[in-house]
Amino acid sequence: MVSQVADEKPQLLSKKAGCNSHGQDSSYFLGWQEYEKNPFDPAANPGGIIQMGLAENQLSFNLLEDWLEANPDALGLRREGASVFREPALFQDYNGLPAFKNALARFMSEQRGYRAVFDPSNIVLTAGATSANEALMFCLADHGDAFLIPTPYYPGFDRDLKWRTGAEIVPVHCTSANGFRVTRAALDDAYRRAQKSRLRVKGVLITNPSNPLGTTVPRADLEMLVEFVAAKGIHLISDEIYSGTAFAEPGFVSVLEVVAARSPLAADVSGRVHIVYSLSKDLGLPGFRVGAIYSANAGVVSAATKMSSFGLVSSQTQYLLAMLLGDKDFTRRYVAENKKRIKERHDQLVEGPKEIGIGCLESNAGLFCWVDMSHLMRSRSFEGEMELWKKVVFEVGLNISAGLSCHCREPGWFRVCFANMSAKTLDVAMQRLSSFVHHASSFVDEAGRRRGSGPARSMSCPLAIKWAFRLPPASADRKAER
Amino acid sequence: MVSQVADEKPQLLSKKAGCNSHGQDSSYFLGWQEYEKNPFDPAANPGGIIQMGLAENQLSFNLLEDWLEANPDALGLRREGASVFREPALFQDYNGLPAFKNALARFMSEQRGYRAVFDPSNIVLTAGATSANEALMFCLADHGDAFLIPTPYYPGFDRDLKWRTGAEIVPVHCTSANGFRVTRAALDDAYRRAQKSRLRVKGVLITNPSNPLGTTVPRADLEMLVEFVAAKGIHLISDEIYSGTAFAEPGFVSVLEVVAARSPLAADVSGRVHIVYSLSKDLGLPGFRVGAIYSANAGVVSAATKMSSFGLVSSQTQYLLAMLLGDKDFTRRYVAENKKRIKERHDQLVEGPKEIGIGCLESNAGLFCWVDMSHLMRSRSFEGEMELWKKVVFEVGLNISAGLSCHCREPGWFRVCFANMSAKTLDVAMQRLSSFVHHASSFVDEAGRRRGSGPARSMSCPLAIKWAFRLPPASADRKAER
Repeated sequence: MVSQVADEKPQLLSKKAGCNSHGQDSSYFLGWQEYEKNPFDPAANPGGIIQMGLAENQLSFNLLEDWLEANPDALGLRREGASVFREPALFQDYNGLPAFKNALARFMSEQRGYRAVFDPSNIVLTAGATSANEALMFCLADHGDAFLIPTPYYPGFDRDLKWRTGAEIVPVHCTSANGFRVTRAALDDAYRRAQKSRLRVKGVLITNPSNPLGTTVPRADLEMLVEFVAAKGIHLISDEIYSGTAFAEPGFVSVLEVVAARSPLAADVSGRVHIVYSLSKDLGLPGFRVGAIYSANAGVVSAATKMSSFGLVSSQTQYLLAMLLGDKDFTRRYVAENKKRIKERHDQLVEGPKEIGIGCLESNAGLFCWVDMSHLMRSRSFEGEMELWKKVVFEVGLNISAGLSCHCREPGWFRVCFANMSAKTLDVAMQRLSSFVHHASSFVDEAGRRRGSGPARSMSCPLAIKWAFRLPPASADRKAER
Repeated sequence: MVSQVADEKPQLLSKKAGCNSHGQDSSYFLGWQEYEKNPFDPAANPGGIIQMGLAENQLSFNLLEDWLEANPDALGLRREGASVFREPALFQDYNGLPAFKNALARFMSEQRGYRAVFDPSNIVLTAGATSANEALMFCLADHGDAFLIPTPYYPGFDRDLKWRTGAEIVPVHCTSANGFRVTRAALDDAYRRAQKSRLRVKGVLITNPSNPLGTTVPRADLEMLVEFVAAKGIHLISDEIYSGTAFAEPGFVSVLEVVAARSPLAADVSGRVHIVYSLSKDLGLPGFRVGAIYSANAGVVSAATKMSSFGLVSSQTQYLLAMLLGDKDFTRRYVAENKKRIKERHDQLVEGPKEIGIGCLESNAGLFCWVDMSHLMRSRSFEGEMELWKKVVFEVGLNISAGLSCHCREPGWFRVCFANMSAKTLDVAMQRLSSFVHHASSFVDEAGRRRGSGPARSMSCPLAIKWAFRLPPASADRKAER
């Protein structure tokens, strides 16, 4: 039949379809593409690129597998042995399967040590956090309205929050001077810049724990943020999809705890504070597309529920997860063990670079570290960062994410993921990095004074890997490694 | 914790959140709400409302159940007995699971007797047809651009196509004079009206088979539509989610067949003809949220694929359906048997009203009939239609969909669904309708001459059902009946 044809009249598509405000041309996504072309596999392609740009959690799968083995009805769509296939097959109520919403609300409360308790009727289910964030933007912002977002921030936000909604992002510039914590001064500065650009600020969006920093937002900072949105009469969205990854003190504090503690003025802001959640990170189930909006604002819940028609969660998946998350003994064990494993892997990642003089931002959450490699750049600029990034991807064979793709203002920072691979693969990655730094350091030591003054040939191809001669392994192998 | 609070400053939400252009205040959705309050159950609530407003296909579930029983690995996420849980858990490539896309493409070709052959690389997966239709609008139309849609049309389109995209719908008025077929004159008229309103027309959207008519679009009409969009240089979207329900001659013809036959000019329009598909109707799996866009336009496929991040299909569901649709023997049997059962049920619905003088538009597809009850109205107006609709819902206890909610221009038509209930329940519905018409007819006979001249007391409460004293049955019972 007819194969794909390029439309001869591109103006016939919408401006959205033609423009690149989806942001998928950034190095963040380009790195993924490079990885796809030449993915590392310990046996089939040991010289391939190791994917450290993907915040997946593969550390606790065996716990899920054990549970599924012991509870076959959950996958089998059965109840006491009898098929209940018809129920989920037909269930398309956009309010969601009550058993699943109840279990999810309890799981969210459990993740927060029951210091915040979630009401199932305030939950709107969405096909992943991507969909939740966009739906919230559609609910809260009109075309040209703006949200303030502290930098560095998740590269996907440009697509998720702006592309189809027409909303704008105004960066709140944070710096390494205070560990990239958001300050009132930085918020005020961003607010002023938005006003100067004649943008109506509708809210602030944070990630807590932070992606890409891997840090939880301190309670004092949350209090400051809540004060700020209360004073300005705007919204606060807290994307808490990594809440279950907080493995060390100070632990995770949800914005909901801060709002609740703010009584008697709580009612003043509680309708303007919204949470995004997902099971992609905490449970390691990105393929199942389960996200949620949590809001005490009846208008938001009503509108977002209607919008959820555009991205409902498969009822087959809701049925499975209702049973899984409904098993309190399991979730308690899982949450504790998962954090323990994330901490071990985190420590493994931090130790490697430390030995070779690469520092990480001190972190206590997330599936990644925020790594400072600025001293390895030929020039302290984003050109230098991009040059280093390309070297690390193409020559060292590690797909990490450059700070610029996260809108970081200081060149030289990189997000490095550690939970989507085996400990052995992480070891290989650290060895590669070590070897690279060893070569690079000899250059830096020798030519430290002329840094930025011209090309340094000795750094250009330290490992001399010839990608062109490697064939990518079969698709199934690639998936097994991811 | 904090329960839901109404936001004191509604202007803080977006205009979309506050407005009702989602169309969910129409009688179409109101009827559902009434049903939810008092659902029929043969044992627990035999006087409840029978849901005839929901185009679900429950007729062939036992075929699916038998297959699942024989192929437990599909639900169990296993391959040759071993768990492959990790693969779908992590699979979030928005290009979709290749095995599923291949199987879906083949299934779509099979539904069309291989007269049109679908290329998997032209498929974009979406969380249901709802999401597919909206994504296509985002790809093809900017704020204020318009699509022409023949009336009557599916009430959900106002939400799906307009609400978040800002696109407009201009109705193409069809009438009962030619069985509501779309004509070139009607298209030209709509195009002119759009231009008068200074709307830029970006395309035409049709449903084939038609929802709510239950008719397939004749080949000649498709040729006329393709000529029209070719001449105007605009797009044609064909929503073919009921393609597998065409149970009688003349059979279903896909627009893709017409485009392919149009060679050598085919390339001229093939990039502007797009198909929406779903497994909600043909396979009866609305809960699983599986939809698709099919387009030969590389720009549309690229943009829609990026947009599919907002509504991906659960990989758990993709895994199951890859196996189910990959079984050619099963799909062949299913498609044939499903059509046979739809025809039987359709005939049952048509026979009932016929005996009591109610006519249906002759139809050969869909899960509903388009029923003419105009002679039962007190006045030939939309007020008369709404009055009759309320009677049928509240007094007769049948939730049917009024033509006005489908933007039909002639009052007195109703969409009546037949495939979401047992044959016994459909019998009860027909008996109720018969009893109602018997009472109503005595009024119509007696007062035929003064039709529309004033209230007719005898018609106001023929069955005198007192809903207020009935308690709704438990939620589980309700689901079993739906």
